[in-house]
Amino acid sequence: MCRWLAYSGSPVLIEDLLYTPKHSLIVQSMHATLGVEPTNGDGFGLGWYGDRATPGLFRSTEPAWNDRNLRDVAEQVTSPCVLAHIRASTGTAVQFTNCHPFRHGQWLWMHNGLINSFRAAKRDLVLAVDPSLYPDIEGSTDSELLFYLALSFGLEDDPPAAVARAIGLVEAAGREHGEPFPMQGTIATTDGTTLYAFRYSSEGRSRSLFHSTDASTLRQQYPDNALLEKISDSTRLVVSEPLGDLRGAWREVPESTCVVIRDGAEELRPFAPLAPPPLGIPGQAGSPREVVGSPRPTAPAVHPTG
Amino acid sequence: MCRWLAYSGSPVLIEDLLYTPKHSLIVQSMHATLGVEPTNGDGFGLGWYGDRATPGLFRSTEPAWNDRNLRDVAEQVTSPCVLAHIRASTGTAVQFTNCHPFRHGQWLWMHNGLINSFRAAKRDLVLAVDPSLYPDIEGSTDSELLFYLALSFGLEDDPPAAVARAIGLVEAAGREHGEPFPMQGTIATTDGTTLYAFRYSSEGRSRSLFHSTDASTLRQQYPDNALLEKISDSTRLVVSEPLGDLRGAWREVPESTCVVIRDGAEELRPFAPLAPPPLGIPGQAGSPREVVGSPRPTAPAVHPTG
Amino acid sequence: MCRWLAYSGSPVLIEDLLYTPKHSLIVQSMHATLGVEPTNGDGFGLGWYGDRATPGLFRSTEPAWNDRNLRDVAEQVTSPCVLAHIRASTGTAVQFTNCHPFRHGQWLWMHNGLINSFRAAKRDLVLAVDPSLYPDIEGSTDSELLFYLALSFGLEDDPPAAVARAIGLVEAAGREHGEPFPMQGTIATTDGTTLYAFRYSSEGRSRSLFHSTDASTLRQQYPDNALLEKISDSTRLVVSEPLGDLRGAWREVPESTCVVIRDGAEELRPFAPLAPPPLGIPGQAGSPREVVGSPRPTAPAVHPTG
Amino acid sequence: MCRWLAYSGSPVLIEDLLYTPKHSLIVQSMHATLGVEPTNGDGFGLGWYGDRATPGLFRSTEPAWNDRNLRDVAEQVTSPCVLAHIRASTGTAVQFTNCHPFRHGQWLWMHNGLINSFRAAKRDLVLAVDPSLYPDIEGSTDSELLFYLALSFGLEDDPPAAVARAIGLVEAAGREHGEPFPMQGTIATTDGTTLYAFRYSSEGRSRSLFHSTDASTLRQQYPDNALLEKISDSTRLVVSEPLGDLRGAWREVPESTCVVIRDGAEELRPFAPLAPPPLGIPGQAGSPREVVGSPRPTAPAVHPTG
Repeated sequence: MCRWLAYSGSPVLIEDLLYTPKHSLIVQSMHATLGVEPTNGDGFGLGWYGDRATPGLFRSTEPAWNDRNLRDVAEQVTSPCVLAHIRASTGTAVQFTNCHPFRHGQWLWMHNGLINSFRAAKRDLVLAVDPSLYPDIEGSTDSELLFYLALSFGLEDDPPAAVARAIGLVEAAGREHGEPFPMQGTIATTDGTTLYAFRYSSEGRSRSLFHSTDASTLRQQYPDNALLEKISDSTRLVVSEPLGDLRGAWREVPESTCVVIRDGAEELRPFAPLAPPPLGIPGQAGSPREVVGSPRPTAPAVHPTG
Repeated sequence: MCRWLAYSGSPVLIEDLLYTPKHSLIVQSMHATLGVEPTNGDGFGLGWYGDRATPGLFRSTEPAWNDRNLRDVAEQVTSPCVLAHIRASTGTAVQFTNCHPFRHGQWLWMHNGLINSFRAAKRDLVLAVDPSLYPDIEGSTDSELLFYLALSFGLEDDPPAAVARAIGLVEAAGREHGEPFPMQGTIATTDGTTLYAFRYSSEGRSRSLFHSTDASTLRQQYPDNALLEKISDSTRLVVSEPLGDLRGAWREVPESTCVVIRDGAEELRPFAPLAPPPLGIPGQAGSPREVVGSPRPTAPAVHPTG
Repeated sequence: MCRWLAYSGSPVLIEDLLYTPKHSLIVQSMHATLGVEPTNGDGFGLGWYGDRATPGLFRSTEPAWNDRNLRDVAEQVTSPCVLAHIRASTGTAVQFTNCHPFRHGQWLWMHNGLINSFRAAKRDLVLAVDPSLYPDIEGSTDSELLFYLALSFGLEDDPPAAVARAIGLVEAAGREHGEPFPMQGTIATTDGTTLYAFRYSSEGRSRSLFHSTDASTLRQQYPDNALLEKISDSTRLVVSEPLGDLRGAWREVPESTCVVIRDGAEELRPFAPLAPPPLGIPGQAGSPREVVGSPRPTAPAVHPTG
Repeated sequence: MCRWLAYSGSPVLIEDLLYTPKHSLIVQSMHATLGVEPTNGDGFGLGWYGDRATPGLFRSTEPAWNDRNLRDVAEQVTSPCVLAHIRASTGTAVQFTNCHPFRHGQWLWMHNGLINSFRAAKRDLVLAVDPSLYPDIEGSTDSELLFYLALSFGLEDDPPAAVARAIGLVEAAGREHGEPFPMQGTIATTDGTTLYAFRYSSEGRSRSLFHSTDASTLRQQYPDNALLEKISDSTRLVVSEPLGDLRGAWREVPESTCVVIRDGAEELRPFAPLAPPPLGIPGQAGSPREVVGSPRPTAPAVHPTG
């Protein structure tokens, strides 16, 4: 189990995001309350967008609560789009390249959850990654592989569809290996402009996910709250766990939902996996994108969620 | 808060000590139950005696539960005398040289607890360290400084008296700075032959400490327990928390007690700090050992413990 | 470029192997003289055989010259079979799981060199790994992948043939991607009983490799050398660079050679890659071992070396 | 031996400072040419001033050439005042708190060189640190202690005088312990507004130091140099080694010199240590600042340098 936070809005000092809140992500690294496991000490990562198209990335295998460099970067850097993640390994090695967020070009990706029976299905899934993308995989996690599947299936063009296809493939491959509930978790991904968050599990019992409510309403309710004053109306947060106990500030994201945040507005859409390409074929084709991608737009959801 | 374990007895595979027990030290690194804080993820250390007089030392700032090198060393190395420690920092930096056990020549030292108001008293305490030993201090913790005070006051010759003087000084210096309860904690120290453990706090509310009971008796009670079969009658363990729920296997060490384990027999003695040397003088004398040591043997306990 | 050392003989204190020699591996980590690059500071690894069939492994991304834990383990542990490696990354991440030696069951493997055009050929090579072994690959290096190819092709049964097939596949795959000289380097692998070392490159300009000469002859030549007294007649060393300037102690391993060391005797055999299985097919077969393995014993060398 | 770089001028992308130059500091971490030792792989540090008065600090014990987080921070952050350092340990532990620059409040400090006979003199020097500052010392290096001596002697009020006193004390203490040449090295320190650099050694054979010449003149000489176009006229650099082979861009700082850079102008002043306070007394006084500071302004140079 992991915990994560995604921010989109007015430029924020990262410290205010990671350290200042009462139940901040750093506090959660030692004392998460909504997860399977209270300790998230197997590394962390911070991705942020600055002046460049390519986001900055700061990851480490140390527990987040100890990392002084993270603290210093957080105290100095402001950004309008931030992804932060604290890791509790589900078995893969605790190493730099297994820390979220993962980055590819302008895109960041992070995940809380796991692919069940990953060992059995891993090779099949790797075969479906676009060969031109394959050498860029650096770590050994299910989460990074999921990112590369989504990239192979068109993440940069149609993120919700690409994620739906990637999860569709994970479910098909998992079931081939006898796993009834292959997919579990929440995902956040962004290009720095639009933020996408997903809550989905094959079993329909997904990891927790919350999004912030309208800041202007909250400001009226809590006129004395200093934090709310700093936040613009267009600011939105999606988090594994609420960052404080301000009643009304957080709404649970329903099961099988995709949250899209753009220009200070959020949209919640139903989310369901899309049928995967026939397994085994991608290896022969020149590009899985073509094989996999073409019949997909009209494919029905393979898993009636919710 | 930290957790530690000290072993003296028949040569044991370190894995059996650190990983095999149900509530092992590695489990405690994430889920300690008797302490202030369940997570001890700020580094660890392992000290063991092999063929040399100087013990081996393996320390790291990573959480113990993640360290594969620790696991491998534990699987390969056997030793008749082992000290292991998992750290939860009380404020000083998470760095290699702050990990316990500390080593000086043949001696190892580890501590669970803290010197209250350490910032205020630190300089006074450092001044009392033997100038010839002073440059060997590598880290910034109260625990290592306590070790060097004990070394300055004769640890190698009379360990209980040296520790009593070191704690006496800590209490005197702390009170000069307005701290009513300067000392807190449990200590283990050994030269590989005799193991000394201390439980003491100025307030009389010390960190937990337990010692194992006679293995032969336990073996009769639990004839089917595989672990007990491996352990010789002469084996003794002193631990912050019991390593399993075998009723009768563990006895609490009373407050203000020194445990001495030698040749497979343990002795529990009352422990009280000894009056420290007059503060400020050590800096002038050539050697604090002389100044401090000579009048000490007859000095009365400054703190009626218990 | 990396440097490595393989030892087989009478049980040796690892310190005498890694630290004592004049031009020891630790010295080479900062000042290698025969390689492309004098600094080998991108991590290190130590593998050794003790009482268990499974060897111990101690790896780190720190420069070897700084690692105090390595020093301590070396001072305490003796072993009759040791592999040690210092890394200079050829591009893949500096992370724990990319440090040599790699381990699988009883086997250790290390490599100095690289697969040229690895990015282009990686996916093809991965497809040839036995699917049951595939999930055990943890890192991202060419060296570890080469190990898993050799394991897939029968390393545990016939090491020289398995390595010949693995390299044969590397050459075939590389050439498909337009690389004239796909393979470069020296390899050491062992199960703790027999030590195999290989020197081979597609171009016929391989990384340097030396083996020690007969200790008894040397002892007569240098009656005052303390190191030679400790070494039994059955001791053999294979190294990237000589560990000292004792003339006559080291012989260069010729190009395209396999060194086999068993029971204190070494044998040098000509080495050439074996024809690989048809590319692309392994993915369909249940097991590459069968597909690849059966026709191989009689396959001619695809690359006349030397 | 270490290498460092200090920048003051128009806001610069740190990447352009650390990675872009031909003989950049990152290149120097593996291939320094002017120093005793080509490898500076024992950690690094980056200090920079942003919107806050307190500078940001990013330090690590990894070799700088490997650190991806450093690369990412450098790619994202711009600053008008930057200090960067790569370390080659002269004996003290390779640990986070021993990495330069050191920070106290608004001040940063870094050093290339060493205090000779530091082990012998360390305790005497520590005694001279202001007791209220003493507990803030976190590491074990001579360089950090020198910083705290300068802070104790008035660094925040009169930096050149404070450094002169600190070095004066180092020389007096060293000579008491029989060391003829106690001080060696170059120092940079800044509050973000004014940059001070010192080149001095007791022996008069100091570590190398260079400062950049006027950017506008250079721009005329090299109209096609892209780097020079980005740099404002007010930009100044002080470095251990020139960052490129642009003839005329670098001037050596003479022995026993203090460089002061403020508002885009540099001033070179002769530098000599000032007589230290009588040794042994500071421990008795309430504050070394008073004891030491009051008679100092008129004290003559104890070491006619040059």
